[in-house]
Amino acid sequence: MKLDLLKQLRSENPIVFNIANFVTAQDVANGLNAIGALPIMSAEIQEASDMVKISSAVCLNLGTLTALQIEQMKVVGQLANEQKKPIVFDPVAVGASSYRQSVAEALLTGFQVAVIRGNAGEIAALVGSAWQAKGIDAGTGTGDLVSIAQACAVKYHCIVVLSGPTDLITDGQRMGQVNNGTQLFQLHVGSGDLLSSLVAAFTAVAPDDYFEAAQTACLVLAATGQLVAKQMTADRPGTFGIDLQDKLHLITVKEINKIASVR
Amino acid sequence: MKLDLLKQLRSENPIVFNIANFVTAQDVANGLNAIGALPIMSAEIQEASDMVKISSAVCLNLGTLTALQIEQMKVVGQLANEQKKPIVFDPVAVGASSYRQSVAEALLTGFQVAVIRGNAGEIAALVGSAWQAKGIDAGTGTGDLVSIAQACAVKYHCIVVLSGPTDLITDGQRMGQVNNGTQLFQLHVGSGDLLSSLVAAFTAVAPDDYFEAAQTACLVLAATGQLVAKQMTADRPGTFGIDLQDKLHLITVKEINKIASVR
Amino acid sequence: MKLDLLKQLRSENPIVFNIANFVTAQDVANGLNAIGALPIMSAEIQEASDMVKISSAVCLNLGTLTALQIEQMKVVGQLANEQKKPIVFDPVAVGASSYRQSVAEALLTGFQVAVIRGNAGEIAALVGSAWQAKGIDAGTGTGDLVSIAQACAVKYHCIVVLSGPTDLITDGQRMGQVNNGTQLFQLHVGSGDLLSSLVAAFTAVAPDDYFEAAQTACLVLAATGQLVAKQMTADRPGTFGIDLQDKLHLITVKEINKIASVR
Repeated sequence: MKLDLLKQLRSENPIVFNIANFVTAQDVANGLNAIGALPIMSAEIQEASDMVKISSAVCLNLGTLTALQIEQMKVVGQLANEQKKPIVFDPVAVGASSYRQSVAEALLTGFQVAVIRGNAGEIAALVGSAWQAKGIDAGTGTGDLVSIAQACAVKYHCIVVLSGPTDLITDGQRMGQVNNGTQLFQLHVGSGDLLSSLVAAFTAVAPDDYFEAAQTACLVLAATGQLVAKQMTADRPGTFGIDLQDKLHLITVKEINKIASVR
Repeated sequence: MKLDLLKQLRSENPIVFNIANFVTAQDVANGLNAIGALPIMSAEIQEASDMVKISSAVCLNLGTLTALQIEQMKVVGQLANEQKKPIVFDPVAVGASSYRQSVAEALLTGFQVAVIRGNAGEIAALVGSAWQAKGIDAGTGTGDLVSIAQACAVKYHCIVVLSGPTDLITDGQRMGQVNNGTQLFQLHVGSGDLLSSLVAAFTAVAPDDYFEAAQTACLVLAATGQLVAKQMTADRPGTFGIDLQDKLHLITVKEINKIASVR
Repeated sequence: MKLDLLKQLRSENPIVFNIANFVTAQDVANGLNAIGALPIMSAEIQEASDMVKISSAVCLNLGTLTALQIEQMKVVGQLANEQKKPIVFDPVAVGASSYRQSVAEALLTGFQVAVIRGNAGEIAALVGSAWQAKGIDAGTGTGDLVSIAQACAVKYHCIVVLSGPTDLITDGQRMGQVNNGTQLFQLHVGSGDLLSSLVAAFTAVAPDDYFEAAQTACLVLAATGQLVAKQMTADRPGTFGIDLQDKLHLITVKEINKIASVR
C-alpha cells in the first residue's frame, strides 16, 4: 500500500474528467474536491479533446448512459489512450439491460482502460458469470468472487476492482484486498460512483502502478467510511453522506494506517 | 391505512424505475434507498424494455422534461401498461408552460397511469381549473381542492394525490386525507418529487389497492417530516433534507401510528 | 449597499429561470429557495417562451454545456432581452476548452446580459488575459484583477462580478468590493454557480440597478458563508454546504450589517 499517494494527490490536485451519472454527479464532484482532486464534468463531444488534454485521468460512468453519451465516451476513451491518460470504467448496472451489456462490450474493446470498478453483479455480468443482481444492487451469487474478478482482469487486460464488504483488486494474477468499510456505503446512493472517481484520481498520481493506485483509493474511501460510521449511534444514510465528504477532506494517513486491514 | 405496507416494502425492496427530474434525482434516489426501495434512473429509450421488466413500478417526472425524454416516457408508459407495472405520474409545473400542458395531456391519454401526484396548482392545471400558481410553487386559488382532485381522478381514471399541508387522496369517489407534515417540506426542493417516487414504491407492494398505497406513502413521508421538524429549533432547510433521509430509514410503524392524523 | 433588497426578495419571491449545470442544480435550487426565490430549471427549447414569461430573471450557466443547451440559451437570451428580463451569465471553465470560449463569445454577442459572474480565470479568459487556470479552479495569474474585471465589463457592456477571496463588482468605471467570505467556498463544489443564481435573484428585485443587485448578492452569500464557517471547528466541506442552505434562510439584514466589509 502506498498511502503516500494520498499526500501526493493532495499536493498535485489532479484534474479528473468525469463522464458522469447525473444522479450522483454532485456527490462525486464534492467527494473528489474534498479529497484534493479537481473534478470536471463535461457532456459535449466537441470539447472532448481539450478536456482530455487538461485532465490527468478520466472516469467513464455508465449510470445514466444515453446513445449520445456513449458516442462521447468512445471519443474520449480513444483520446485518453492517445494521450496516455488513465481511464477508469464504471459499468453501472451493466447486467440490468442487454443494451448496457452491448455498450460496455463495445466501449471496452474500442479503447484500453486502466481500471474497471464495479460491484459483484456488475463484474460478473462483464464476464458472463452467473450472478443474481437486482437493479443497481450488488446482488448475490454462487460464483467465486476472486475468480470472477480475475477473469474480468484477464479478459480486458486491466486492473479490476470488485468492491463490496471486502474490496478485491486484481490484475489477473496479483490479488489485493481491502477489508475496511461499513454497511452504510450501501445505504448511500453513489458510493460506487464515488469510488470509481477516486480510483481515477489516484491513477492520476500513480501512472506507473494502477494496481497500487486502485487499492489505495479503496482503502482511503473504506477507511474514511469506517471512521465516519464508528461515530454514529444509528444508521443515518443522509448524515453519512455529508460526514463522508467532511472526513475525506480531513482524514490523515496516520488515521488510515491505524485501522487499515489490507492484504 | 395499511402501514404493514412499509414493512412489506422494506422486506421486498422493490425496484422503482424513475424517469427523473435531474435537479432532484440524487435526493429522490437517496430517499427511495433510505425507505428500503431500489431506485433506478435510466434515460435511454433503447433499454426501456429491460428497465421496465426488472422494475416493480415506474415514476414519470415532468420536472426537467425534454422532447427526447417525452419519447422515452411514451415508450416506457406503454411497456409498463403491457407488463402491468403501476405508473405514477408527476406533472411538475404543468401549468407553467403550454408545452408541458400538451405533453401531460398526450402522455396521460397514451397510457393508463395508476396515480397522479401533484400540488394544488398542478392538479388544477390538469383539469383546467382556475388556480394561481407561480412556477414550481403550489400557488393559491379559490377552487375547492377536493372537487379539483376528484375531477382529475375521474378524468384520468386513476388515483389522484393532491399534496399540500393536507394531502388529499382520491379515486374520484373515495376520499382520503393525511393531515401530518411540516411546512419545511416547502423549503426543501424536491419534496414533491420524492413523494411521487415513494408512492410508486408503495404501489409496487400493493398491486391490488393503489389508493391504500398512495395514502400510506403520503402518511409515511408526512409523518417522517413532522418528526424531523419537531426536533429542530429553527427552520433549517438543508438540515431538514439530510435528517429526512436519515429518518426515512429509521422510522418505525409504531412511531407513525402514534402521530398519524388521517381520514 | 442596499440590503433592503434582501427583504424585498423575501417578500416578492421572484422566479429565477436557470439553464443549469446538472452537477450543481439541486444545490443551486435549494440555495435559491432558501433565500426566498423560486427556482425553475427547464431544458426544453419549446417551452422557452413561457418560461421566460413567468420568470423575473434568467441565469445561464455553461457548466455542463451541450450543443442543444447552447441553442436553448440563444433563444432564451433573446426572449429575455425582448421581455426586459435581466440575464446573468456564468462562463464556467470558459478557459478550459476552445469550444467553451467560442460558445461564450457567440452567446455574449447574440444578446445583452445584465451581469457576468465568474472567477478570476474565467473573467480573464473572456478578455483574453494571461491567467493560469486549472480546470474549474480559479487559477493564479499576474494580471491585475481590477483591470481584468473592468475590461470585461467594458467589452460586454454589463456588470462584471469577479468573485474570489475578494469579490470585485464593476460596470467598467464604478468599482465595488466585498471582502467577506471563507475559504470553505472553494471546498464546496457549486459555490460559484450558486452565487450566479443569487445575483440573478437580486437583479429581479432591483431592475434599475444591477450593480447594487450584484454587490448585494455577493455580500449576502459571502457573509452567510463567513458566519457558517465561524461556527465550525474544522474544515468540513459537506457540513458547510448544508449549513449554508440553513443560514441562507435564517440570516438577517442585521447580522449581515454587523460583519459587512464592503467598498
